[in-house]
Amino acid sequence: MRPAIGERHWIIPDGYIPPTSAGTLTSHESVCVLNVSSEEAKLRFSIYFEDREPLEDIPFVVPPRRTKHIRTSSLNKEGTPIPPGIPYAIEVRSDIPVIVQYSRLDATQAENALMSVVAYPIK
Amino acid sequence: MRPAIGERHWIIPDGYIPPTSAGTLTSHESVCVLNVSSEEAKLRFSIYFEDREPLEDIPFVVPPRRTKHIRTSSLNKEGTPIPPGIPYAIEVRSDIPVIVQYSRLDATQAENALMSVVAYPIK
Amino acid sequence: MRPAIGERHWIIPDGYIPPTSAGTLTSHESVCVLNVSSEEAKLRFSIYFEDREPLEDIPFVVPPRRTKHIRTSSLNKEGTPIPPGIPYAIEVRSDIPVIVQYSRLDATQAENALMSVVAYPIK
Amino acid sequence: MRPAIGERHWIIPDGYIPPTSAGTLTSHESVCVLNVSSEEAKLRFSIYFEDREPLEDIPFVVPPRRTKHIRTSSLNKEGTPIPPGIPYAIEVRSDIPVIVQYSRLDATQAENALMSVVAYPIK
Repeated sequence: MRPAIGERHWIIPDGYIPPTSAGTLTSHESVCVLNVSSEEAKLRFSIYFEDREPLEDIPFVVPPRRTKHIRTSSLNKEGTPIPPGIPYAIEVRSDIPVIVQYSRLDATQAENALMSVVAYPIK
Repeated sequence: MRPAIGERHWIIPDGYIPPTSAGTLTSHESVCVLNVSSEEAKLRFSIYFEDREPLEDIPFVVPPRRTKHIRTSSLNKEGTPIPPGIPYAIEVRSDIPVIVQYSRLDATQAENALMSVVAYPIK
Repeated sequence: MRPAIGERHWIIPDGYIPPTSAGTLTSHESVCVLNVSSEEAKLRFSIYFEDREPLEDIPFVVPPRRTKHIRTSSLNKEGTPIPPGIPYAIEVRSDIPVIVQYSRLDATQAENALMSVVAYPIK
Repeated sequence: MRPAIGERHWIIPDGYIPPTSAGTLTSHESVCVLNVSSEEAKLRFSIYFEDREPLEDIPFVVPPRRTKHIRTSSLNKEGTPIPPGIPYAIEVRSDIPVIVQYSRLDATQAENALMSVVAYPIK
């Protein structure tokens, strides 16, 4: 049995799904989660906006001893996705410790731009 | 009632408003703040320079359970904005805990460049 | 004698070796390790995937008072390298404290994109 | 009197001065330091390499209540600068607490790429 490492609660204040793509790559964001343990990690995402109520408790599972690089455009709350082109923020909770990083590829213009942060752990 | 999470005091040493833009996007910086609590967060920004006195205690409010992605070009101290094209640094204080991330889109040249950091928390 | 500083265990959830390059630079990732101590640091890398078992305990040595910027494409487990073009995650363990940063240059398109994070320390 | 905040010891494992520039901007790295206190901060930089002895104890002063965005190409140890085009790592010590961020603009190709990290604090 491998123990879980990391934290159960992570925050990413700067979320943004670029609305358009040019060139050969597609604009996207990924929330990258690593679960080193021998148990499944059950995540819940909450999405906060500037001008409307949050979308809360979107579920996602990361299998034992696996990473998942989760496209934010794939997340939805009972069919409601995160709208592209507006600022938002991401809260990730997990039932066991995991480690979370956020990366964005912006291909709005012909050449791509890249940014990444390790999410902020709430201890 | 949802409790506040994060910290009350954050630092971003590398501030810089790119003076020009090319292509279809506009160069800008954003200070992205998440307030997960049921209360308003009252922020105060202080701006430090290389060669002149700081601009202190610029106010900004983040509503309950909302994020704000604040353009640094919108901040001003009694009408004095942060000048573009010079190095500066940012201090953010909040009356309740929040989480702060800083991102810059540089569109000085035809294609954009992107960088982001979670601000440094003072505990 | 100089003492070791940093941590013995670091995580990078977002690994990805860009499969192609255009322009004058080559797409690559580097795991940058600093060992300030007067002793050798013996590292072991483990690589986690989305859909297969991890590659575990790949060894690497950082000499005393040196940095090594390690290309992930150079790492292999008994001849099995990290495949390009798929998402993965990196765990770094060291027998003495070191400091770890991860950077990626993506030259998939003609102009390059750059991202970097300090790895997440497990304390 | 304003008290100093931050830490006295910071590490940046991934240093690299891009050897060439194209387009309208110049490739460079900056170590961005904020000193919020009413006292001068006396810094000492040490530079570590992959294959040679470190350059140690390069001095730099950050005035009270100021930021300095220090070009790494301006640092030198008794006339010996950091060579461009080779991997290195940076250690920053300060006699009082400061906050340190590292950013790189790579203009090797016609369009620029940008990366930034908050340095790793040694506590």
